[in-house]
Amino acid sequence: MSDLPKKIMICEEGPREGFQIEKVPVATDKKIKLIDALSETGLKHIQIISFVNPKRVPGWADADEVTKGFKKYADIDYSPLWLNPKGFERALQYKKKLTLNGKVAIGASEKFLIRNQNTDLEQNLQRQRDSARMYNDNGVPIKSVGVNSAFGCNYQGEIPVSRILEAVAQGFAIAEEFGEKPHQVRLSDTMAWATPDRIKRAVGAVRERYPDKQIHLHLHDTRGMAIANAMAGLEMGVDSYDSAVAGLGGCPFAGHAGAAGNICTEDLVFLCAEMGIDTGIDLDQLIETAQLAERILGRSLPGSVMHGGTLDRFRKAAAE
Amino acid sequence: MSDLPKKIMICEEGPREGFQIEKVPVATDKKIKLIDALSETGLKHIQIISFVNPKRVPGWADADEVTKGFKKYADIDYSPLWLNPKGFERALQYKKKLTLNGKVAIGASEKFLIRNQNTDLEQNLQRQRDSARMYNDNGVPIKSVGVNSAFGCNYQGEIPVSRILEAVAQGFAIAEEFGEKPHQVRLSDTMAWATPDRIKRAVGAVRERYPDKQIHLHLHDTRGMAIANAMAGLEMGVDSYDSAVAGLGGCPFAGHAGAAGNICTEDLVFLCAEMGIDTGIDLDQLIETAQLAERILGRSLPGSVMHGGTLDRFRKAAAE
Repeated sequence: MSDLPKKIMICEEGPREGFQIEKVPVATDKKIKLIDALSETGLKHIQIISFVNPKRVPGWADADEVTKGFKKYADIDYSPLWLNPKGFERALQYKKKLTLNGKVAIGASEKFLIRNQNTDLEQNLQRQRDSARMYNDNGVPIKSVGVNSAFGCNYQGEIPVSRILEAVAQGFAIAEEFGEKPHQVRLSDTMAWATPDRIKRAVGAVRERYPDKQIHLHLHDTRGMAIANAMAGLEMGVDSYDSAVAGLGGCPFAGHAGAAGNICTEDLVFLCAEMGIDTGIDLDQLIETAQLAERILGRSLPGSVMHGGTLDRFRKAAAE
Repeated sequence: MSDLPKKIMICEEGPREGFQIEKVPVATDKKIKLIDALSETGLKHIQIISFVNPKRVPGWADADEVTKGFKKYADIDYSPLWLNPKGFERALQYKKKLTLNGKVAIGASEKFLIRNQNTDLEQNLQRQRDSARMYNDNGVPIKSVGVNSAFGCNYQGEIPVSRILEAVAQGFAIAEEFGEKPHQVRLSDTMAWATPDRIKRAVGAVRERYPDKQIHLHLHDTRGMAIANAMAGLEMGVDSYDSAVAGLGGCPFAGHAGAAGNICTEDLVFLCAEMGIDTGIDLDQLIETAQLAERILGRSLPGSVMHGGTLDRFRKAAAE
């Protein structure tokens, strides 16, 4: 396991992922409280909000208020999500407080694009080109190329590694049209199809083709495979992950009510800490924040270490 | 990942693990219903009951009734758990219906033995010798040597690999005193200290010392690491696992209320199926049985695939 990284970067997505799926909108001050608590844990990248249509996502009708209200720490990137030019324009208003990173995100699955966005692969590329132009025109750097549904799709089935590589190449080509050189390739397991062997094959192929790019994994725990998939990533040297405190978030796809959301931040931090991989995060403080998230939502959340406890207290007691 | 086994053996422990921790005892006929449903899934090894003191474990006061009541399939081993000579004697009554396998189980952690069983390492060896003699006298074969708390202990902390090897050697020595040659080494993560790197180190060391013995893993999911630990086992070629349908069972140790129990059978079967490893189990049937377990206990259970669903229905739809 010599490829295990010494240090990894975690991008916390709990606030953004977690609050959008709640049926009863969470109070604005509670959202801000959770973000402020996350800022105290050692996390350096937090995706805090979604600038989306409040009619479609009522949980984020207060995105502006949350953006204005949270306390910004100088050494932390706070980022928004947007899905279209209107959302991007809203985000642009806050470019002093928020970190805006452009991304060229290619859908690996044409059937999904047709079904959910009414675009085929070619039209999707054109949309991404339009987005890239919009970022370029507004001085927003394109930091990454992403592949969505990289490991499989509920409508298309398995995604071959060759398609992942094609999508990555298409993404870089679009970025280059605007003179950008993204440093990162993001592979997203959007519909929780990944297994450790698929992670290793995909990461291996991308790393071989793009040895100088950072690979980033976005993992869902819908089928309980997320921590094993992260371990596969770590074994392949992947040093950048999205995750959500307490396992916040759920699967927005039909038929998955009750299924878990993103990989849980404290579980990932625990795994890394136990193997000597530095995350820069205070695990005890993070667990307290996960417990705060449970209190805010008023229900048990899927994180494991927040319920099972860490090992350090036993180590300390055993050493006495 | 060339060491991945082509086929693995799963020993289902859901009934035994799951029913003992319930505060309100589960009705005998419901226990029998779950065992009978498990017999229809393709599982070949099911640990169904505990012959323990009904005053200490009220959930198993009906162990005799359950044993008499379940339907025995000829090609399935149904086994009991016992913890002392009295429990063994109760189990012996049912040796036509139940499979009784003797085990020499060495505690890796002396502090745990002292605290929980009031024995030191030497006294524990003597107890195991007494048990082995009892098995021998009653014609019960000693099939395995086990190490409890193999990966760490809440009272002792980390367990070095050298101690695991010592415990295994002590176990084999005791078995040999009675002319027995156990074919299996069972490593139990009794208190959920294992991480994938610890699994690999321990399994690697045992396999190197005992290349002809089967290694078996008993994993707990208290800290969410069980599926990653099983994956580490698979990568090391381990082809024998305990697990519990729906993730039944909990952690009996203090301070872990709400923590998950054993590794979930259907999640493990899903992982294997997706990687082409044969378990002999019908995943859909197993998920239905997990859902039956939820109905019997009247609450949500920790399994993931039972809530997130399998991928095959999407594959079929995508192929149409």
